[in-house]
Amino acid sequence: MVSPETSSSHYQSSPMAKYAGARTRPVICFSDVVLFLGGAFMSLILVWSFFSFSSISPNLTVKTNESSAKCSPEIDMKYDPTDPVYYDDPDLTYTIEKPVKNWDEKRRRWLNLHPSFITGAENRTVMVTGSQSAPCKNPIGDHLLLRFFKNKVDYCRIHGHDIFYSNALLHPKMNSYWAKLPAVKAAMIAHPEAEWIWWVDSDALFTDMDFTPPWHRYKEHNLVVHGWPGVIYNDRSWTALNAGVFLIRNCQWSMELIDTWTGMGPVSPEYAKWGQIQRSIFKDKLFPESDDQTALIYLLYKHREVYYPKIYLEGNFYFEGYWLEIVPGLTNITERYLEMEREDATLRRRHAEKVSERYGAFREERFLKGERGGKGSKRRPFVTHFTGCQPCSGDHNKMYDGDTCWNGMIKAINFADNQVMRKYGFVHSDLGKTSPLQPLPFDYPDEPW
Amino acid sequence: MVSPETSSSHYQSSPMAKYAGARTRPVICFSDVVLFLGGAFMSLILVWSFFSFSSISPNLTVKTNESSAKCSPEIDMKYDPTDPVYYDDPDLTYTIEKPVKNWDEKRRRWLNLHPSFITGAENRTVMVTGSQSAPCKNPIGDHLLLRFFKNKVDYCRIHGHDIFYSNALLHPKMNSYWAKLPAVKAAMIAHPEAEWIWWVDSDALFTDMDFTPPWHRYKEHNLVVHGWPGVIYNDRSWTALNAGVFLIRNCQWSMELIDTWTGMGPVSPEYAKWGQIQRSIFKDKLFPESDDQTALIYLLYKHREVYYPKIYLEGNFYFEGYWLEIVPGLTNITERYLEMEREDATLRRRHAEKVSERYGAFREERFLKGERGGKGSKRRPFVTHFTGCQPCSGDHNKMYDGDTCWNGMIKAINFADNQVMRKYGFVHSDLGKTSPLQPLPFDYPDEPW
Repeated sequence: MVSPETSSSHYQSSPMAKYAGARTRPVICFSDVVLFLGGAFMSLILVWSFFSFSSISPNLTVKTNESSAKCSPEIDMKYDPTDPVYYDDPDLTYTIEKPVKNWDEKRRRWLNLHPSFITGAENRTVMVTGSQSAPCKNPIGDHLLLRFFKNKVDYCRIHGHDIFYSNALLHPKMNSYWAKLPAVKAAMIAHPEAEWIWWVDSDALFTDMDFTPPWHRYKEHNLVVHGWPGVIYNDRSWTALNAGVFLIRNCQWSMELIDTWTGMGPVSPEYAKWGQIQRSIFKDKLFPESDDQTALIYLLYKHREVYYPKIYLEGNFYFEGYWLEIVPGLTNITERYLEMEREDATLRRRHAEKVSERYGAFREERFLKGERGGKGSKRRPFVTHFTGCQPCSGDHNKMYDGDTCWNGMIKAINFADNQVMRKYGFVHSDLGKTSPLQPLPFDYPDEPW
Repeated sequence: MVSPETSSSHYQSSPMAKYAGARTRPVICFSDVVLFLGGAFMSLILVWSFFSFSSISPNLTVKTNESSAKCSPEIDMKYDPTDPVYYDDPDLTYTIEKPVKNWDEKRRRWLNLHPSFITGAENRTVMVTGSQSAPCKNPIGDHLLLRFFKNKVDYCRIHGHDIFYSNALLHPKMNSYWAKLPAVKAAMIAHPEAEWIWWVDSDALFTDMDFTPPWHRYKEHNLVVHGWPGVIYNDRSWTALNAGVFLIRNCQWSMELIDTWTGMGPVSPEYAKWGQIQRSIFKDKLFPESDDQTALIYLLYKHREVYYPKIYLEGNFYFEGYWLEIVPGLTNITERYLEMEREDATLRRRHAEKVSERYGAFREERFLKGERGGKGSKRRPFVTHFTGCQPCSGDHNKMYDGDTCWNGMIKAINFADNQVMRKYGFVHSDLGKTSPLQPLPFDYPDEPW
């Protein structure tokens, strides 16, 4: 696979004037975070030392905890000053139809007025997922969605992310794979404290509960998606990336991307035309309607100079991975990880779930350093995506039968759940068996059970 | 209803020797928290000022953020020192069969070794809920469970609680209503940073997203449950309290309660006997098997002096409420809350979801101060419990038909979701209609839509 760095040198020189601004704007997004983190910390000290001697603000929750009054306070969910912010602007709406302007400045002002949210803001993430509002046609569809959601909640709890589940359309026309865009935009506006929104499809799950995204790689980018430049620019395939899982930076560039992206969707008068354009370029696209994934690939393909510099095509690990490639290997991966644990007592040490990241970091350092993810890697797959299975409708790809899908899901869910339940003292002895769990012996797996 | 304070003076003098210790132990639980919070803060300062000049500990994640290094650090999920803690004790297990001893000391030691978790520890809560591991028999059962879970995740996100969903048995015999006890015990051990575990049944939901439990009332108690002393001690009814929702303090007293409680469950050789004893005292109990709710009532009834002082029977608001009593009033309550919002612009002000508690506190102060919850109150019901509906099996009480249950659930879920989605700019225009949502106009409801 071509890495973004290498291929980004072959830019085509066909930028569109309307996008010209977009090239510089995104850079603001990140560098400003660094700037205001520094600057805002000083103001934070001033603000809080001021608050500790005064109580003129009727909104102020005076902190009784000395540690908070003296320095960097814990996040204060009860403090919202009356100073006007973007929420007080009648012209700002959460809807997909109306663009948001100057979002970076608006978000920065909010953060400066809420200093307790500045520490940790650099990569603070809110995960957003969702599914349809009606019961699934597939009899076990909702059961699987419930377990997929539990898995995401587990990952977010372990890593301290917030998670929001959207199960109602925010725009009647933006349904199915287009429904994510209105939800992501609304989440950006509702969560100015978050630098990233992490969209994860309902049929994707975390199969490595320890792994955390390599944020440092994404510093200069505003959208991270699993994909391969060569497949976009040479093969012109509508599967050159997968739009079912993405990290999008909460900044003006992203607001504009969502507007442009939505412009190829069902709300657009040119929706039908966009479907034809997509199929004319990406010959392997199966259906006539314009879809969000091909639309994103189209932007990268057609306006490479505008979008490519800011969209990180992550191909170094399973940012999301195709389940058929992953599920058969889960039993072997389990064994490989048990070997690491037999080899090093630190990995066998029981601990509070809240400090799990310390052990994930240790395993990374001791056993996985430099180990690339993806096919054939000894790394656990990070995210396993049941593309083509359609758990809710049950209308899976005819390449495989339904049971292959449903059994694969249960196996992957239990594989992930073993990493979680271990912190509660239990394990699924067989990946195909959800319940009852087996108690884990002390010092497992050094002592077999 | 008799308040605990008044009726707690009529103690029967029938303590059992084996419980004598339990009367004092619980007091340790709380007062120690206060003690070590103070003490630990000093050690925290020492610990961190030491860390900032040294790095001898291989486990130490040296904080680069100046604010953290200088003072009260943000929660450090990557720090777990090698000093031995209870996790390193081979004799400590997470299982329901084996008692945990000296839990208060063990938990306190862990907290002192993890100073970043001390701030906010006083009432830190982990919510635990769950359901069966297999798909529901009721065709819409899993869909409803998914939406009930989303509701709990929403409440926890808004108030900063962690939430854990258990969908596998931790002991094969501890199933159905007994399954919660092994899950709660395992969560206590896995979450030493948490002072409370909040069990909430899968068929209960939060219908007031702003309300927070009155923690100050529970300072001297270790278990909080919705119930009425008069109905235990005078009427001797198995519905004198509801065990489907409870707050249990993460302390030794609770560990011992869970052991005693479990002693009346399916793992006990005397399980059958306990069912008979329960029915002999609580004549309205419907089925012969010993159940967790009657078992708890039995302990309060039989060993009042031991348990009553530490179990807070919350009857002042819907700590959990019977849905048939609540659902018909939801439309009126919506109207009452809109009136408050028309009356005060602060309640109409849009804001980040993360600072929602500030507006909940404002509404409390401005409109609800002194307002008791429960039947006929102008307060929203805090938790609505669909007791008797059995969403997963579908085997609902024959008093009412299934559709009354399912429609009531959708109505209650959307009633709650309106409080959440408003922070994302949208609303369910009709409580019976989940999707699509309607955009909220600016300054709603002052401007009607």
